[in-house]
Amino acid sequence: MTSVVFTEGRKFDLTAIGRLCIDLNANEINRPMEQTMTFTKYVGGSPANIAIGVSRLGRKTAFIGKIADDQMGRFIRGYLDKEGIETRNVVTDTTGAVTGLAFTEIKSPTECSILMYRDNVADLKLSPSEVDASLIADSKALLVSGTALAASPSREAVLLAVDYARRHGTKVVFDLDYRPYTWQSEEETAAYYNLVAEKSDIIVGTREEFDCMEKFEANPGHDDRITASKWFGYAAGIVIIKHGKEGSIAYSVDGQEHRARSFPAKVIKTFGAGDSYAAGFIHGLMSGWTIGKSMEFGSAAASIVISSHSCSDAMPTAAQVTDYIERCGRGEITAG
Amino acid sequence: MTSVVFTEGRKFDLTAIGRLCIDLNANEINRPMEQTMTFTKYVGGSPANIAIGVSRLGRKTAFIGKIADDQMGRFIRGYLDKEGIETRNVVTDTTGAVTGLAFTEIKSPTECSILMYRDNVADLKLSPSEVDASLIADSKALLVSGTALAASPSREAVLLAVDYARRHGTKVVFDLDYRPYTWQSEEETAAYYNLVAEKSDIIVGTREEFDCMEKFEANPGHDDRITASKWFGYAAGIVIIKHGKEGSIAYSVDGQEHRARSFPAKVIKTFGAGDSYAAGFIHGLMSGWTIGKSMEFGSAAASIVISSHSCSDAMPTAAQVTDYIERCGRGEITAG
Amino acid sequence: MTSVVFTEGRKFDLTAIGRLCIDLNANEINRPMEQTMTFTKYVGGSPANIAIGVSRLGRKTAFIGKIADDQMGRFIRGYLDKEGIETRNVVTDTTGAVTGLAFTEIKSPTECSILMYRDNVADLKLSPSEVDASLIADSKALLVSGTALAASPSREAVLLAVDYARRHGTKVVFDLDYRPYTWQSEEETAAYYNLVAEKSDIIVGTREEFDCMEKFEANPGHDDRITASKWFGYAAGIVIIKHGKEGSIAYSVDGQEHRARSFPAKVIKTFGAGDSYAAGFIHGLMSGWTIGKSMEFGSAAASIVISSHSCSDAMPTAAQVTDYIERCGRGEITAG
Amino acid sequence: MTSVVFTEGRKFDLTAIGRLCIDLNANEINRPMEQTMTFTKYVGGSPANIAIGVSRLGRKTAFIGKIADDQMGRFIRGYLDKEGIETRNVVTDTTGAVTGLAFTEIKSPTECSILMYRDNVADLKLSPSEVDASLIADSKALLVSGTALAASPSREAVLLAVDYARRHGTKVVFDLDYRPYTWQSEEETAAYYNLVAEKSDIIVGTREEFDCMEKFEANPGHDDRITASKWFGYAAGIVIIKHGKEGSIAYSVDGQEHRARSFPAKVIKTFGAGDSYAAGFIHGLMSGWTIGKSMEFGSAAASIVISSHSCSDAMPTAAQVTDYIERCGRGEITAG
Repeated sequence: MTSVVFTEGRKFDLTAIGRLCIDLNANEINRPMEQTMTFTKYVGGSPANIAIGVSRLGRKTAFIGKIADDQMGRFIRGYLDKEGIETRNVVTDTTGAVTGLAFTEIKSPTECSILMYRDNVADLKLSPSEVDASLIADSKALLVSGTALAASPSREAVLLAVDYARRHGTKVVFDLDYRPYTWQSEEETAAYYNLVAEKSDIIVGTREEFDCMEKFEANPGHDDRITASKWFGYAAGIVIIKHGKEGSIAYSVDGQEHRARSFPAKVIKTFGAGDSYAAGFIHGLMSGWTIGKSMEFGSAAASIVISSHSCSDAMPTAAQVTDYIERCGRGEITAG
Repeated sequence: MTSVVFTEGRKFDLTAIGRLCIDLNANEINRPMEQTMTFTKYVGGSPANIAIGVSRLGRKTAFIGKIADDQMGRFIRGYLDKEGIETRNVVTDTTGAVTGLAFTEIKSPTECSILMYRDNVADLKLSPSEVDASLIADSKALLVSGTALAASPSREAVLLAVDYARRHGTKVVFDLDYRPYTWQSEEETAAYYNLVAEKSDIIVGTREEFDCMEKFEANPGHDDRITASKWFGYAAGIVIIKHGKEGSIAYSVDGQEHRARSFPAKVIKTFGAGDSYAAGFIHGLMSGWTIGKSMEFGSAAASIVISSHSCSDAMPTAAQVTDYIERCGRGEITAG
Repeated sequence: MTSVVFTEGRKFDLTAIGRLCIDLNANEINRPMEQTMTFTKYVGGSPANIAIGVSRLGRKTAFIGKIADDQMGRFIRGYLDKEGIETRNVVTDTTGAVTGLAFTEIKSPTECSILMYRDNVADLKLSPSEVDASLIADSKALLVSGTALAASPSREAVLLAVDYARRHGTKVVFDLDYRPYTWQSEEETAAYYNLVAEKSDIIVGTREEFDCMEKFEANPGHDDRITASKWFGYAAGIVIIKHGKEGSIAYSVDGQEHRARSFPAKVIKTFGAGDSYAAGFIHGLMSGWTIGKSMEFGSAAASIVISSHSCSDAMPTAAQVTDYIERCGRGEITAG
Repeated sequence: MTSVVFTEGRKFDLTAIGRLCIDLNANEINRPMEQTMTFTKYVGGSPANIAIGVSRLGRKTAFIGKIADDQMGRFIRGYLDKEGIETRNVVTDTTGAVTGLAFTEIKSPTECSILMYRDNVADLKLSPSEVDASLIADSKALLVSGTALAASPSREAVLLAVDYARRHGTKVVFDLDYRPYTWQSEEETAAYYNLVAEKSDIIVGTREEFDCMEKFEANPGHDDRITASKWFGYAAGIVIIKHGKEGSIAYSVDGQEHRARSFPAKVIKTFGAGDSYAAGFIHGLMSGWTIGKSMEFGSAAASIVISSHSCSDAMPTAAQVTDYIERCGRGEITAG
């Protein structure tokens, strides 16, 4: 599969840029959060989860981000260090910013929501001059999370990081990760998502996220193929459009269309599914697998995470994913 | 004791105005917060704690405040309702504000700190036109917490509430409760603290808090008597200056000075001591006790709270306080 | 007249605090501003005009304020110096603030409007620690303009200045000068106007301005006498309520009511009438004249200013006012 | 000359997007502004000046921008209408924004400065949804002024306008027009200037402005050729780098380098030189002239404007420029 070819011989497989925050997951689940009395703390944020996931799968990863100068920030740095993720470009804020929080509410396996604390958060204060170009030059791929584009100066830091990636032949993986809060308007979102997508090699998002990018375009039927084609006219090699339970479709620049089977799971909550999928898929591509096999691996990794209480902490190893696929094959795991 | 005489025959003993927030108390204590993995949720905020404390002591209370339109806000309203506190003037924010958070870190019984989330909080968005004058007119006393003066429009709401109190003969109890965050400058703090203190019947604060108010005054020796005298020239009947472990001194407008003994406690954390003391003291005064006896009752209530994991939830009933005083008298409780 | 007695033997008759800005007056008048091609520059701002007016009448004045670090700011300081006004407490901003501007539009003598530039203005950046208490202690009176209460930190600077005035026996003259822009809400305005009015010896404003202060009061008939009485319950000795063309009424704490005749004028524009009136009235009171005679003198000064192109630059000397009154008496000046 | 080929048969030659403001030019010149007493009002702002200049040269132009809902805004619209510029996409602000102001100070012909009012200005409030794609589709070229990128939502409106231009084959002329105020940081400026330059057909700026864009690049010698080459790798056909008195150099994608002679002038002030140069140059290119001849024409137009009191109002007709060139040729005009 040659739709996206990574430059070999680099020190890091993946450098992720963007959000580092704290998940506070309800311990008493299957009820509204008003009735939850205790919460467990985990590292969170989509790019953090993906970096942790890729690292668990045995790959060298690094992170570019900003943390608060408080106990939450120090917990995040300590956790990334423990996971073997390079944190020399994880900058500590000096302006009194706080760590972003996400309290999860799990009313039922299919009815989950998040209560976010995103005012004055450290992750959005990463500035262009703090981005280490050498780290990007030393990586096969740069993972960009769309939420990091939501405000200045993080927005400009990401735009510069993408620029560095293109200059150094580092592939750009753009995970749309659209969260309405922190954005001022849909027009603003569309403007910046398009600027980054134009320079990305791999673009991953839900149908709704791609619709959001196409606010000023003509795609009235929300046609996946029209969406993907646009980006093949720029830099993209692979465009993945996710349709929730109906599964995902990957389009590649060679005109192919790829689908992968999904795996059963005893679902606790749906959070983290996308992040573990992305981690597994990137691992597959970097391993030289076909797009189809990479998608399948990502899919199995996602099933493991949604069967667990946390996102970051539940990211599986390659052996665990392989084992899960085999057990599903033997019918040992069924939906619950 | 006639330094402050409450108007009898009113529907409510106390209406508190100001902060309603959430405490997230570390479950694993005696360690830095970086190592704390789970937290338990409680209603928090100094005026909330005092209202809950006074209610537990058997008195009719009400609250004037603003909560976020989210699960945390609904939890707060539900808890106040359950405690029998009138919440008809607890307004729900419609601007997307969040609930203030306080994560507690308990390294040791004497080394405690708080990690605050105070950006864009609902409690500071209470506006003057939302203050219900009839609730204040129906109360013996209005409890004002200084933190509610930290930003507009909550600041103006409190100034108006104090104005209503004076027009209706409702006594104003001003708990300085100074928290540096959210204030722009010390000059700003001094300006507003003085404006409210000039119209207060009872003023309670630490020596440091009174120093803060006297920024533009001449009291170089930080003399308690000079501090108290100033306010007797305005509306005050009682001024209580707290000196931490050295205990508190209450000055009354009749020239008297009152001290109360303290009680032993097996201290878990020091948070909430001031709030339970205030609740107990107000209950005593309203019961017609002497200032000395009221202080003693407050002191015992404080010892109960600092021996517990929470602030609000640990507020004792009158029977519990009396029992605690008796057990201390019998030597059954010793410092731990 | 003893409703307000000034302390004699002070270095300054009047210190004004608040707005220093620039008026840009249309040279081509009696047309909409769209058709005005050139503008003439003058020092402006209500308290600046009053200080200049009182100085022209032969009295020692000083100013407490803040100017931008630009050509407009330097022009203002130079003009005040030239007028003999003490400017040692006119602070130069260092944050990049600009000088407030007021472009006047004179469609006809009775149809005038102002286009204001009030974003990021230097005058509202005066902070409490910049207020020189000794200047206030050395003055017979402190003139406070309500607009200076519209934003922090100027708001707190004024509150502190009033506090200094009361401590030092300096009379507080409060010119309501309400301008809707820069205020967040009517509730906010009412809150701060009341706080300053409670501590003022002389309060001057239009009926509409007093209504604005009484937002949370019961004065449905907008009765001047009820309005004045409230303030006699605080510190006020004189309350002047202006009714535009119907003239002004001054109420004094001794229960008297005073009206003064007005003078004819060949009106160019109405701007500056209130400021010259205030300057003349203060001069009269300080000269030991009756309230009635002081009002008459203010009224004549106002007629001179509205017959001229500027406000500040047209402020008359005592000889000019006396001469104007005499010429009116001889029928030499008629309305035009 | 085929480095940039405009699509023929379009209704408008040029649509400009960005700043519409007011110049207040000192009438008493050759002195510091402190001593200037009167000012004359003109329409101003770089893209406004260029649009007016191109219109005066006989071409159809349109404007995309936002004006304040006040007398200054209405004056601007009226002036553009009078000049025959299409204003249907000049939107009136509804949020209380003001018109940007520029007071000029002319100490000597070579010592000029500007005092700007740029807080809360209407021009920076233009939003993406207000940009009329059909106007851009109907134009040969879109003129973008860099200052419009300084803040949201104007920034996103410009990014979208450029996107529309590229989709419709409308050439993008990017006038860097860098003004430090209103930008948060140099990094921010570099990020957005690069994003627009990547999509521009013609880029015009001073050496300092190009340095500003190259903040994260390696061009230590500030080499014009390196600068120009970068943009030929994107969409640019012509890059013009201005070196003040040393003249300008135009680089074209065919590898050529062009310089033009300059013309003498009796200089009153230097403001407006760049705008009239741009207008003349665009007119030349659109007339099918060589780059050299177009530069010469722009240069003569600039000499006319700097010999006059205003910028916009002094923009010459084609006949005036031709006449000026001829008179210079006959030695009738010499530097003064």
